[in-house]
Amino acid sequence: MSTLKINSDRLWDSLMEMAKIGGTEKGGCKRLALTDLDKQGRELYIKWAEEAGCSVKVDAIGNIMCTRPGEDMSLAPVGTGSHLDTQPTGGKFDGVFGVLAGLEVVRSLNDQNIKTKHPVEISVWTNEEGSRFAPAMMGSGVVSGRFGLQEILDTTDVDGLRLGDELERIGFAGETPVTGRKFHAFFETHIEQGPYLEAENKQIGVVTGGQGQRWYNATLLGRESHAGTTPMHLRCDALLASTQLIQKVEDIAKAHAPGCGTVGFMQVVPNSRNTIPGKIEMSIDLRHPLDEELSAMDKALSEAIAEIESATGVAIQLDPFWYYEPIHFDENCVNAVRKAANDLGYSNMDIIAGAGHDACYVSDFAPTSMIFTPCLNGISHNEIESTTQEECEAGCSVLLNAIVTMAEQVNEAEAADLAAAK
Amino acid sequence: MSTLKINSDRLWDSLMEMAKIGGTEKGGCKRLALTDLDKQGRELYIKWAEEAGCSVKVDAIGNIMCTRPGEDMSLAPVGTGSHLDTQPTGGKFDGVFGVLAGLEVVRSLNDQNIKTKHPVEISVWTNEEGSRFAPAMMGSGVVSGRFGLQEILDTTDVDGLRLGDELERIGFAGETPVTGRKFHAFFETHIEQGPYLEAENKQIGVVTGGQGQRWYNATLLGRESHAGTTPMHLRCDALLASTQLIQKVEDIAKAHAPGCGTVGFMQVVPNSRNTIPGKIEMSIDLRHPLDEELSAMDKALSEAIAEIESATGVAIQLDPFWYYEPIHFDENCVNAVRKAANDLGYSNMDIIAGAGHDACYVSDFAPTSMIFTPCLNGISHNEIESTTQEECEAGCSVLLNAIVTMAEQVNEAEAADLAAAK
Repeated sequence: MSTLKINSDRLWDSLMEMAKIGGTEKGGCKRLALTDLDKQGRELYIKWAEEAGCSVKVDAIGNIMCTRPGEDMSLAPVGTGSHLDTQPTGGKFDGVFGVLAGLEVVRSLNDQNIKTKHPVEISVWTNEEGSRFAPAMMGSGVVSGRFGLQEILDTTDVDGLRLGDELERIGFAGETPVTGRKFHAFFETHIEQGPYLEAENKQIGVVTGGQGQRWYNATLLGRESHAGTTPMHLRCDALLASTQLIQKVEDIAKAHAPGCGTVGFMQVVPNSRNTIPGKIEMSIDLRHPLDEELSAMDKALSEAIAEIESATGVAIQLDPFWYYEPIHFDENCVNAVRKAANDLGYSNMDIIAGAGHDACYVSDFAPTSMIFTPCLNGISHNEIESTTQEECEAGCSVLLNAIVTMAEQVNEAEAADLAAAK
Repeated sequence: MSTLKINSDRLWDSLMEMAKIGGTEKGGCKRLALTDLDKQGRELYIKWAEEAGCSVKVDAIGNIMCTRPGEDMSLAPVGTGSHLDTQPTGGKFDGVFGVLAGLEVVRSLNDQNIKTKHPVEISVWTNEEGSRFAPAMMGSGVVSGRFGLQEILDTTDVDGLRLGDELERIGFAGETPVTGRKFHAFFETHIEQGPYLEAENKQIGVVTGGQGQRWYNATLLGRESHAGTTPMHLRCDALLASTQLIQKVEDIAKAHAPGCGTVGFMQVVPNSRNTIPGKIEMSIDLRHPLDEELSAMDKALSEAIAEIESATGVAIQLDPFWYYEPIHFDENCVNAVRKAANDLGYSNMDIIAGAGHDACYVSDFAPTSMIFTPCLNGISHNEIESTTQEECEAGCSVLLNAIVTMAEQVNEAEAADLAAAK
């Protein structure tokens, strides 16, 4: 039973200190990837990590690796970390908490003079948000091989500035290759960004995987006509047909709990008060943790569309332009998180990550799990994003104990044996 | 039984000749109010009317009155007419047919040496379309007293050009006052602009009135949240609630046949694929020929909104910003149209004008009806607007006979008596 604790005040102070870099009037944070503020945030973090005895390396996409040595340096490190960049109107915790929780783990291991067989490595992943440069989760995506390094370096922002040049400019175009990274295990601590934990009154979310996603564009083609002169029975109203489709998306999601179905985007043509809509463009977003369920939802959507077409006379084109397979985190890592929460007496529940995280890409090449903590009203990507010191303490303590479990704590005698064996 | 006929070829030739002024590549017409092209169209029409023996007057809002004398000039004229201005991408018949049908009636009366007790007067109403200067139906609206002359003269187009100045510029700021107009009866011939006649396979629509309209803006307020992290049961999706409202508008219209209900305009906020919509702005348009039915529809809408609010948790604000009372055309005028159609052997049906027409405003101060003719696929306000020579012939023949009935045809002996009585 592992019940190590972290220094809650120190963690909170570091979070508040980091939040000053790009801090906004409304209490949020604006620290876009590879800006001067991102550079300041990175440098502050590296200073803290070096003070905590870590060695620091930076790779070719700007990911920062801070390592606390293990007793057996031939072993792959146990990793943790997240990102320091924020949304344009972001909060103080999204990403930052995962990085500074990792730092606090290292500081606490030092305080308590704990030695581990495996090294412990904290990663800062470059440009997780994808706000300034798309796509999101770039740093972890390049390391996992989902994105090619060169194509990512050549990405430009809205002002035409090239990512690779910006990386050079702020001094974070490192020399460590992006390939060949290994973790014995990887844990990312993150605020939930959703309302589940709060609604269920749990302190810790044991993240067992990431949802699969299917994204579609749908176009509905009816017939424009005059709202005053076209009788109801002679209409072919694309907007009316779209209401059936929107409701069907909802029904499909509810029939495949805990799946999600959302129409977030919609455009009406010609969008005139006096004209029956002839055309609708809309997005459809289906998500589910299980691939077979997501496939069933996809099939149900196609069937629903055929039914709506024949019932309404409105033609519906469906373009399934993106598919993201569900991610299942490693059983040992998930168990380590759950055990740590239970040992520490934190109420907890299994949970699926609804949004994308660096850990999802890390799980491509390493055993991985995540630790979620509640956030007020489930709100994130917003300056009013809020969480408490106690909630952060709980998440970071779980991280510490999960890391110590996987990194294998060693006592003085064992450490001496390991040293002699070298 | 009155079965006078018009000269079908002459009517068609005049329509095609007028259509050259502003004719478009796709076979439509662009002759916006008070442009140089409108001036050309007006001048061609006046030339034709003078050649047909009419006296011509222009009033202060640019309405043109062409009068064929009656045997008793102390009597109010029987009026007809429509407009010569078009939509930006309009057709060759909307409005123009009603003016040139009036001209053809005068020409036919001349050909057949028919004398009437009442004068016959053809009106060209200024700016019916309202495309360049809003609102629509200006000329008839000023004469009916719905709009003040000065406010209308001060209206500007998108380039800031003042209507009164444009009227002067094209030479149609006339001296006849807009007040005191009288008609013994007024008939407007117009393409239906809807699909009823075609669907019912009728040659003539006997127009008994104009629909009442109630226009609303609705705002639905839900809660924005992340499409990936917000479970279905914790959502407050404004778009989903709007689907119930749109369907209810449809149900209400169908439950109050022949009423119409349309949502033509809708905006989703923030309109992002990844975010559950927090806010919807939409238009609602309810129409019915009977005011008590329109009131019942209004009440049903309010009840539906209360139900949807309580079922969904989405707050709905309804702004009923415009009400237009149903118009009931004069029974004698309607009967004159129906009798003419029957006498001539044209299949016909009673019909309600779904859109606004100059005749609707004329009916404020004079006994009025309209004559509708079919248009292909019910399409209007479109360059592909189409109707046939035979359909125009039928409408114009009905107009001729209805006018002769109301204007009271007199024989030579009666005409001599009337002249002697002066």
